[in-house]
Amino acid sequence: MAPRKIIIDTDPGQDDAFAILLALGSPSELEVVGLTAVAGNVPLSRTARNAQMVLELAGRGDIPVYPGCERPMVRPLFTAEYVHGDSGLDGCELLEPSRPLADRHAVDFIIDTVMAAEPGEITLCPLGPLTNIAMAMVKCPAIVPRIREVVLMGGGFFEGGNTTPAAEFNIFVDPHAAHVVFTSGVKLTMVPIDCTYKAVMTPAWLKRLRAVGTHTAIQAAGMAEFYQEYGNQKFGTDEYPLHDPCVIGYLLRPDLFKGRECHVAIEITSPTTMGMTVVDWWNVTKKPTNCLVLRELDNPPFYELLLERLSRLP
Amino acid sequence: MAPRKIIIDTDPGQDDAFAILLALGSPSELEVVGLTAVAGNVPLSRTARNAQMVLELAGRGDIPVYPGCERPMVRPLFTAEYVHGDSGLDGCELLEPSRPLADRHAVDFIIDTVMAAEPGEITLCPLGPLTNIAMAMVKCPAIVPRIREVVLMGGGFFEGGNTTPAAEFNIFVDPHAAHVVFTSGVKLTMVPIDCTYKAVMTPAWLKRLRAVGTHTAIQAAGMAEFYQEYGNQKFGTDEYPLHDPCVIGYLLRPDLFKGRECHVAIEITSPTTMGMTVVDWWNVTKKPTNCLVLRELDNPPFYELLLERLSRLP
Amino acid sequence: MAPRKIIIDTDPGQDDAFAILLALGSPSELEVVGLTAVAGNVPLSRTARNAQMVLELAGRGDIPVYPGCERPMVRPLFTAEYVHGDSGLDGCELLEPSRPLADRHAVDFIIDTVMAAEPGEITLCPLGPLTNIAMAMVKCPAIVPRIREVVLMGGGFFEGGNTTPAAEFNIFVDPHAAHVVFTSGVKLTMVPIDCTYKAVMTPAWLKRLRAVGTHTAIQAAGMAEFYQEYGNQKFGTDEYPLHDPCVIGYLLRPDLFKGRECHVAIEITSPTTMGMTVVDWWNVTKKPTNCLVLRELDNPPFYELLLERLSRLP
Amino acid sequence: MAPRKIIIDTDPGQDDAFAILLALGSPSELEVVGLTAVAGNVPLSRTARNAQMVLELAGRGDIPVYPGCERPMVRPLFTAEYVHGDSGLDGCELLEPSRPLADRHAVDFIIDTVMAAEPGEITLCPLGPLTNIAMAMVKCPAIVPRIREVVLMGGGFFEGGNTTPAAEFNIFVDPHAAHVVFTSGVKLTMVPIDCTYKAVMTPAWLKRLRAVGTHTAIQAAGMAEFYQEYGNQKFGTDEYPLHDPCVIGYLLRPDLFKGRECHVAIEITSPTTMGMTVVDWWNVTKKPTNCLVLRELDNPPFYELLLERLSRLP
Repeated sequence: MAPRKIIIDTDPGQDDAFAILLALGSPSELEVVGLTAVAGNVPLSRTARNAQMVLELAGRGDIPVYPGCERPMVRPLFTAEYVHGDSGLDGCELLEPSRPLADRHAVDFIIDTVMAAEPGEITLCPLGPLTNIAMAMVKCPAIVPRIREVVLMGGGFFEGGNTTPAAEFNIFVDPHAAHVVFTSGVKLTMVPIDCTYKAVMTPAWLKRLRAVGTHTAIQAAGMAEFYQEYGNQKFGTDEYPLHDPCVIGYLLRPDLFKGRECHVAIEITSPTTMGMTVVDWWNVTKKPTNCLVLRELDNPPFYELLLERLSRLP
Repeated sequence: MAPRKIIIDTDPGQDDAFAILLALGSPSELEVVGLTAVAGNVPLSRTARNAQMVLELAGRGDIPVYPGCERPMVRPLFTAEYVHGDSGLDGCELLEPSRPLADRHAVDFIIDTVMAAEPGEITLCPLGPLTNIAMAMVKCPAIVPRIREVVLMGGGFFEGGNTTPAAEFNIFVDPHAAHVVFTSGVKLTMVPIDCTYKAVMTPAWLKRLRAVGTHTAIQAAGMAEFYQEYGNQKFGTDEYPLHDPCVIGYLLRPDLFKGRECHVAIEITSPTTMGMTVVDWWNVTKKPTNCLVLRELDNPPFYELLLERLSRLP
Repeated sequence: MAPRKIIIDTDPGQDDAFAILLALGSPSELEVVGLTAVAGNVPLSRTARNAQMVLELAGRGDIPVYPGCERPMVRPLFTAEYVHGDSGLDGCELLEPSRPLADRHAVDFIIDTVMAAEPGEITLCPLGPLTNIAMAMVKCPAIVPRIREVVLMGGGFFEGGNTTPAAEFNIFVDPHAAHVVFTSGVKLTMVPIDCTYKAVMTPAWLKRLRAVGTHTAIQAAGMAEFYQEYGNQKFGTDEYPLHDPCVIGYLLRPDLFKGRECHVAIEITSPTTMGMTVVDWWNVTKKPTNCLVLRELDNPPFYELLLERLSRLP
Repeated sequence: MAPRKIIIDTDPGQDDAFAILLALGSPSELEVVGLTAVAGNVPLSRTARNAQMVLELAGRGDIPVYPGCERPMVRPLFTAEYVHGDSGLDGCELLEPSRPLADRHAVDFIIDTVMAAEPGEITLCPLGPLTNIAMAMVKCPAIVPRIREVVLMGGGFFEGGNTTPAAEFNIFVDPHAAHVVFTSGVKLTMVPIDCTYKAVMTPAWLKRLRAVGTHTAIQAAGMAEFYQEYGNQKFGTDEYPLHDPCVIGYLLRPDLFKGRECHVAIEITSPTTMGMTVVDWWNVTKKPTNCLVLRELDNPPFYELLLERLSRLP
């Protein structure tokens, strides 16, 4: 079977980097047709460059990176340097990319790729705010029924939020984009922090990663260490979750995840709960489901998979 | 030490009945100076009568019941006969009370009692929507610093809601009243469903309750059985939580509970999340705390306590 | 025909004073059964005292003043000393009242009076925030169908607001109370600034008022002059409207006013438009009407009436 | 002096047609570099075709029409066939356009044109919902400081709304787009219904238009008659305003208009006032101004201008 074609929409971010590397290390299952960058963890100029650097790290500088939206659809941009460091990839050796960014806007790359492919051929994997995806849907609604699936990292419900008491970062940054995606009718899977908080990386695993000894593994370990330190300060433990690789993990091994089809509403009205993903887990609203919400993860095999696939990279 | 003086504000409801009985069975620790009735689980005419019936069941028809507000402060009334049955106390033998309701409005009874007592003497225990409490605070703000503490059953955060995806019944019914109480500056303890969902009643315990053999115990067991049946349908288990007695349980044995001082905001803006208790558990907003939010309960000793105290009643 | 019985709910305010005096000067048409004070233009302690002082000014210290709510139902209090001066009645000779305030809360006086009277006997005339009226309706919904009519000064639509771009002061201060009143089903007439901006007092009229020479007329002229000065600064003209007397003017001479039965919604959601009275003048929502909205006023005969009635007072 | 370069963003609509014709009849002042179509009065497929037809009517089929967004940024589409007829141009002889639509999306045409021109060279004239303009600003924020000015028809404040009690059609259809434009920092002039309601077309003028005798004039008169009929039903008069031509009229003869620099906020929170343009005419919020709000129009010379320019077309 031909590998599944995916576009990774990303705002790296150390855990974005792990997601990208996991996909690149799985060429028989996944074909990364392009990366699209979006403003989020850090401003667009950095997320676009970081996306390039991660590709080059894995020896895949041939995959194009398309710069996308510099700002959310309606609200002003809010970034998270306090988590990821100034560069967004602190902990990694930072090199200037050897190739230029692609000369097309991410929104247009998404539209053109989906429209040129067979219906149901392209899967979108957003790891940051949903601005590019939603802008593409508004600019060209015809893409919606042609997308195979959107599998996104974002949201949270039973764990609350991580940016405000009720909202997770990716959805909080552009709640209106999330609203567009969640009401679009597209086939949708959501990996919220309820699930990704279970994807905790242990010091032992990190040691094994470093011991792989490849350039990619060593750089990845450096990023993980930086990232973990932020976690140490928050949770007071030396285990810290990698959120974004869960999206790719789900594409590779859906059997490791458990969830439920739910109606999910995005809060775009109240300042108190802005950007909350309101998951109707118990179906009390009787509204039709619009999203598969993942909530459980079998962590050990997930990290084995991650280690094995990262080991394949140069 | 003299028993602590409490006013129970209630909308019985089977689990309200357990809370009232637990208080009545603990006269050396608690003095119930009056019950105030509010519309909630069922309309006011029934909650007031039910409150009287529970008192008479326990041989304490001498404690006055003050009828309160028939409707929430701003929104129209929403009731829950689908949970509690038409009477609100289905499962219990229903008798007409032998004495009339007190000839004073609950709002005035609360105000007058707090103002007549020493500062810090009166504790309010709301088990339903917070309408009466908030109306008293708006009508006479001078009561706020004189109240010893408000210990309320309501809200939910990490478990979501039980009435809408985000809101628990008591707060959903009158979110504006909750907003008044949570912003009043009163000393406040909240027992949300995050905590009360752990107060599960087992079939074995219910059997022991019935075996006590007193009139009160037998009637209480009947109510519990009716109530549990609703739970069976929802959770597919024969264990079901009793929410309201946790409030009285906390007054009697605070050591059985764990929680955290947090800032809690009440959502009064958005139709999607209306009535949500937004708990800033991780203090990300840096707002000053206004509530002790209980989240853990040591269940076996709590149910031992409940059994022992119910056994004392006739 | 017996005079119409009215309760004036008020937060004086110079223009409240003119409304009260106009009512007191019209004993064959109106019987003022009591004044209820509310926080608004200035805090409650001052509005209650000011209400007493206006009664004494007119030799009617026998009419009781009932102190009401110190704060709005849901939001914190916002006052307007920048308009009315620190006392609320700047421009008038300020004396301490010779009698105490009535020993009953305004909310209870409203409830008791309406319930004791014949259905349709009592008219409520709120000149400030609607807190007392709404609190009475929530505490005792049975009053609603017994009230003859609520005729209120407040709101604005075609003139925008006077406190925020969209909201008029009285409704802005307690929008939730306004929402309760406007959704109660009570017979309702609203005199918004769209109408009262046409009730401009000219310097010539003010001169005639002073020339009346009675104590009341002279003091009233003093208040009007102070009040007008604020207007001068805003509108750059020496004409300034007296808002509140329009309510009493409408009771005395409804033929001087023109309006339309409309659906009016109170904005209680958005910070941008909070407290706006959204008048569906063209009936585009097809919602049932709930309010007679006055928009036009025949100004010269209104001021003749005002002068004549003030002249009757000592 | 070279004519001013404008892009007309439009959803024809009979009054859009008059605006386009007025621009085309004024080649020495205005150069129409392209038309961009947006969904609004009728769906996009019709507004794009209608834009082409109006150009061909005036013998300017050479000007390209770029199809834009089929739906608003966040909310579902709401159209107004009840005003404009099924075609959007009822009253005009409907022909199929002889040329195809331009093969570029309106959003990209706007971005590319502004970026290719000198800073301050391109003026945008939106006559419908602001979707295309806002999407261009989000996709490429660099255009904002390069736009000479946005002169838009939309909003209303002192007249209320025309679609809901508080909202005018163009802003109501895509309030989030309006929010983006009004908060962008672009130089902005707004022609709300407060102003355009004064641009009433009389039967006498319509007779003169028809008497011009050219093909364009006769078709325009047909559209105006259809359009006026809707007005007759609403206002009960035979005069009816043409809204959109005021935008072009302002470019040609700003001296005919009066307005004020204000802060304008777009309501995007409340269902009751959604899409309202909250104009701080009296500067009570002290927020910095972001828009020139036109409120007065010298109607007779405006209609003389319109007649004269329409007469120049074939």
